[in-house]
Amino acid sequence: MSLIAVGSIAFDSIRTPHGSAERVLGGAATYFALAASHFSPVGVVGVVGDDFGAEHERVFTERGIDIAGIERAPGKSFFWAGEYEKNPNIRHTLTTELNVFASFAPKLPPAYIDSKFLFLGNIDPELQCRVADQMPAAKFVGGDTMNYWIAQQPDQVRQFLARVDLLMINDAEAMQLTGEVNLTRAARAVLGMGPRALVIKRGEHGASLYTGTGVFGAPGYPLEEVCDPTGAGDSFAGGLMGYLASCDAVDDAALRRAVIYGSVLGSFACERFGVERLVQLRRAEVDQRYREFVALTRFDA
Amino acid sequence: MSLIAVGSIAFDSIRTPHGSAERVLGGAATYFALAASHFSPVGVVGVVGDDFGAEHERVFTERGIDIAGIERAPGKSFFWAGEYEKNPNIRHTLTTELNVFASFAPKLPPAYIDSKFLFLGNIDPELQCRVADQMPAAKFVGGDTMNYWIAQQPDQVRQFLARVDLLMINDAEAMQLTGEVNLTRAARAVLGMGPRALVIKRGEHGASLYTGTGVFGAPGYPLEEVCDPTGAGDSFAGGLMGYLASCDAVDDAALRRAVIYGSVLGSFACERFGVERLVQLRRAEVDQRYREFVALTRFDA
Repeated sequence: MSLIAVGSIAFDSIRTPHGSAERVLGGAATYFALAASHFSPVGVVGVVGDDFGAEHERVFTERGIDIAGIERAPGKSFFWAGEYEKNPNIRHTLTTELNVFASFAPKLPPAYIDSKFLFLGNIDPELQCRVADQMPAAKFVGGDTMNYWIAQQPDQVRQFLARVDLLMINDAEAMQLTGEVNLTRAARAVLGMGPRALVIKRGEHGASLYTGTGVFGAPGYPLEEVCDPTGAGDSFAGGLMGYLASCDAVDDAALRRAVIYGSVLGSFACERFGVERLVQLRRAEVDQRYREFVALTRFDA
Repeated sequence: MSLIAVGSIAFDSIRTPHGSAERVLGGAATYFALAASHFSPVGVVGVVGDDFGAEHERVFTERGIDIAGIERAPGKSFFWAGEYEKNPNIRHTLTTELNVFASFAPKLPPAYIDSKFLFLGNIDPELQCRVADQMPAAKFVGGDTMNYWIAQQPDQVRQFLARVDLLMINDAEAMQLTGEVNLTRAARAVLGMGPRALVIKRGEHGASLYTGTGVFGAPGYPLEEVCDPTGAGDSFAGGLMGYLASCDAVDDAALRRAVIYGSVLGSFACERFGVERLVQLRRAEVDQRYREFVALTRFDA
């Protein structure tokens, strides 16, 4: 396996002004893996309950995703319910039931251990570190975290940051993590905490990549309709890491292309409810949208 | 004159976490003209009071700006006082005194009438239309407006929109003007109101250009320190229109380059209090930062 992803596998109930979906397959690792699967073989480490059936397994396996790392536990899977306002940047969580996820202790199948690329999705930073411990030979570790962990477990988040090569967080999280309101200074502070690269996700405004050698700014894709933004950030991460794994490169030029592929996958994820669009997506559509990003950003030097 | 700008000339008292400045020269037309002057001859149409002295005149004339269109009226100049929070995106207006600006009736010197490029700064949309009436031969009209006019004089704003080739507004104004929360749809709606091009300014997140043939997304310049964001949007507009006037072109490729030059001037404006940085700026610095934008945005096709 060239890429391993650890994170939540969930069922989501989603309401947006465009409609609603009840208990559809979701979770950060699900979106990540589906997005990454358009580029590279990927294995998933997560936990599900009795409600995760063969039809849910097939969503992964039909995209060639390895599910040997998906543990089954008695009880129900992680459940999340949320509602988006007319402005899709504003979302309200209605329900969060951790269920089997509450006692998640990630265990990597032996076949995963030698993988070169690892993505530590947004879970308890202590667990993220334990997973990294199990893959000492990983060449490139990407990671995500969130406001809850930054506030509640700052020391563990610091240890996690020392383990990741690339951190992907949103603008508010970058400010919270560093205490800086200026994103450029926040980025520099994050790079001082361990990661050699940082992506700040700015939602519809795009994403920025910061490394020791410079900054790269990518605009958001001009979607006319955001059907459901759930999982857009995880799909961004999946597209980005999947692309890096596919070309086995992590230099600045590869990271820049990867940010665009991440933006492509994140934009597709918003076009339908849940994982629907990622499942239907064809590689030709991915490449077409990448070319649209070229057209979207080019100007004469 | 190749470019004429109409708008406010003011004195500003500004407080930011980096310091404060008392009654320094400001106003939209001032920032615009200083930014544009790095590219093209520019004339200013505005009104000032008795407090506008020879030293203020020199700020314009030393940059080669034509001030024949600056009317002097008895009383005081427009005065604005404001304060920025640690996050420079949050600003509080402390005082607005219209003074001589309250009865501003823009009159164009005869030498201005044949100018090809016109910028209608953010003033009463009825006045904006009257200025456009005085320059029927203008090849390209840029314009700005704000939430106040959109809410208070929607019909006049519509008439103004029918007169401009390029509208430059921020994201919140685009949503307010169209009732659309999605910026891509908002942009399409604005293009349906008259302008053949629209720039949506997204502050630190950059700017987007929408025309009939496509979208162009430019990132924000990664400033590590925003000393004073006053006038950044007007400087953006000045850099953009000044560049267009300098090359006498308004095709899509020129508009894209112009958005970058606008971003360059907007970023410089934030580096010092008031107009200080725009006054000191050298063309070589402008060109250097343009090249930095190239580096900031390039990725392999």
